[in-house]
Amino acid sequence: MEKIRVLVVGLGKIGRNVLQMLPEYPDMELAGIVTRRQLEVAKEFNTTAVYKLDVPEIYRGCGADVAIMCGGSKNDLPKQTPFFATHFNVVDSFDTHGHIGPYIEEGTGQPMLGHLRTVDIICRETKHTGHIGIGWDPGSFSLMRAFFNACLADCKVYAFYGLTEKGGLSLGHTNALLGIPGIVDARQYTHAKPEAIELVRQGGQPDLSDRDKHRRECKIVIADGADEKAITEAIVNMPLYYEPYDTTVKVVSQAELDSEKADLSHDGLVIATGTAGYMEFKNVWVSNPMATAGFLLAYARATHRANLAGHYGCFTAPDTPVADLLLDCETKVSLI
Amino acid sequence: MEKIRVLVVGLGKIGRNVLQMLPEYPDMELAGIVTRRQLEVAKEFNTTAVYKLDVPEIYRGCGADVAIMCGGSKNDLPKQTPFFATHFNVVDSFDTHGHIGPYIEEGTGQPMLGHLRTVDIICRETKHTGHIGIGWDPGSFSLMRAFFNACLADCKVYAFYGLTEKGGLSLGHTNALLGIPGIVDARQYTHAKPEAIELVRQGGQPDLSDRDKHRRECKIVIADGADEKAITEAIVNMPLYYEPYDTTVKVVSQAELDSEKADLSHDGLVIATGTAGYMEFKNVWVSNPMATAGFLLAYARATHRANLAGHYGCFTAPDTPVADLLLDCETKVSLI
Repeated sequence: MEKIRVLVVGLGKIGRNVLQMLPEYPDMELAGIVTRRQLEVAKEFNTTAVYKLDVPEIYRGCGADVAIMCGGSKNDLPKQTPFFATHFNVVDSFDTHGHIGPYIEEGTGQPMLGHLRTVDIICRETKHTGHIGIGWDPGSFSLMRAFFNACLADCKVYAFYGLTEKGGLSLGHTNALLGIPGIVDARQYTHAKPEAIELVRQGGQPDLSDRDKHRRECKIVIADGADEKAITEAIVNMPLYYEPYDTTVKVVSQAELDSEKADLSHDGLVIATGTAGYMEFKNVWVSNPMATAGFLLAYARATHRANLAGHYGCFTAPDTPVADLLLDCETKVSLI
Repeated sequence: MEKIRVLVVGLGKIGRNVLQMLPEYPDMELAGIVTRRQLEVAKEFNTTAVYKLDVPEIYRGCGADVAIMCGGSKNDLPKQTPFFATHFNVVDSFDTHGHIGPYIEEGTGQPMLGHLRTVDIICRETKHTGHIGIGWDPGSFSLMRAFFNACLADCKVYAFYGLTEKGGLSLGHTNALLGIPGIVDARQYTHAKPEAIELVRQGGQPDLSDRDKHRRECKIVIADGADEKAITEAIVNMPLYYEPYDTTVKVVSQAELDSEKADLSHDGLVIATGTAGYMEFKNVWVSNPMATAGFLLAYARATHRANLAGHYGCFTAPDTPVADLLLDCETKVSLI
């Protein structure tokens, strides 16, 4: 069997997890790594197949079957996935929900095609195949929302994040804290309210507000002489981000905050209730980037297969048969 | 839009739920009902499109797009789904796991193709499309087991049934009770052990025996003068069915047992643990047959679409894109 040759683009936490897990996939092998830091990475991984991001004329002919795009959703993927799709099949974990379909760009007011359609047009034109939004949300949660809606009559879907005692780190809400003058560093943990989850499970499809479903816990490091009370007021009254929730603010030392940064856990729960009962899907990750890498590798396999079958264009998790993520048909039959 | 014309075959609990739910599907309409009790059913549903099962020359030309097979897995579906697949696209909830793939027939020692391959050969030859094993297990659980295995490195899957206080009714184990002399009527409830579920969630992939995961509760009605102690001994020592479990036996009145028969609830949980963490999928049904009807209707839609696209043959839940279960593409994009 010819192996699927994988190009890893970007060496943040997700890219490193993809590299680490790749040897466990008997049908895949590494075609190369694309990074901004070519020399350091070549030394670290002891291989010559390390390419510099800004010299595409070198890597575009590397013979990779699929490029696994491991950059960030804000600055990397909106540019990199379309570019790499002109040369390779692609898979990414783009997670800005509002920019997957068409949207109006903030600030400029420009109408935008959205990530899915942009990559789709390029893939169709260049006879490549792509999967975008492949992580746990979007990704596994998208698949579940579609499955639940299709199979459950009178379906209503609820989502909860931060089920463990520690809660789940929210990057968006952390960034909102970092924008407040006087805050030096911060982490925001979202906590699902267990009583809201129980209420949903009991049926009756209650209307739950943001405040009913989640509370927000802010840990902040403040500058010397900053006004803790004023900062706390600024946080709890911030529209959209904190005002709609019960929010607690705790000032901690930089050392205490740093000690929490090694923890990469996260979790979430989708519950769909309908006339017949309810279905729920829960993810609890010790390592969020490792989980994302697992989804990316499975969909890299499906991307390659779809391309061999002549399915050009860009797809999302619900578009692709789950059987195509598996190593072989024997495995599939054993799991029915 | 031309509607998908659905033939409902069999009017047990599942068939009645399909009929009841059908008006909520704007892209589907009833083509007819096939039953053994034509006259009663025609009267009850006030329609002439009711066909007698044993007169196929009447209904085989009824113009249905998909036959939803609602008979039992033991006596009906192994014969009916292959027969109807010669005339229609088909979808069924065949749930005898051991007879989906090839198997050796008990008693006769005959090698058998299994339900999937049997229906597949007929569908390919007659240019039809089928989906078999479409319920919650097999069906939704098959989809999840495949998804978990593909996406979670070092994946180990555990299944639990009977999560509520009442437990989950097991038909197979109930039938085993009914085979014991002196037992007039019975119900067997399976109970998952909550401490086993917690142990799995904590990681470490423990080896759990049948006894570790579930206990069995038997409610029996015994004949006048029957030896309760001997019957209890016969139950708890029955190999395969009860000996591997902690089993409790309670003698109840026929009236008490009958009062429980209106309850159609059931539930189950699949947990997959791996290096990155765990994923779990839970079904909790108020009405087990209504849940099954929901899966059958969604896959009837996908079956019709696959046939229009020229995908002939027989498939299972993991083979089919979840997006094809949804009414339209707009719904899909809204759920990503």
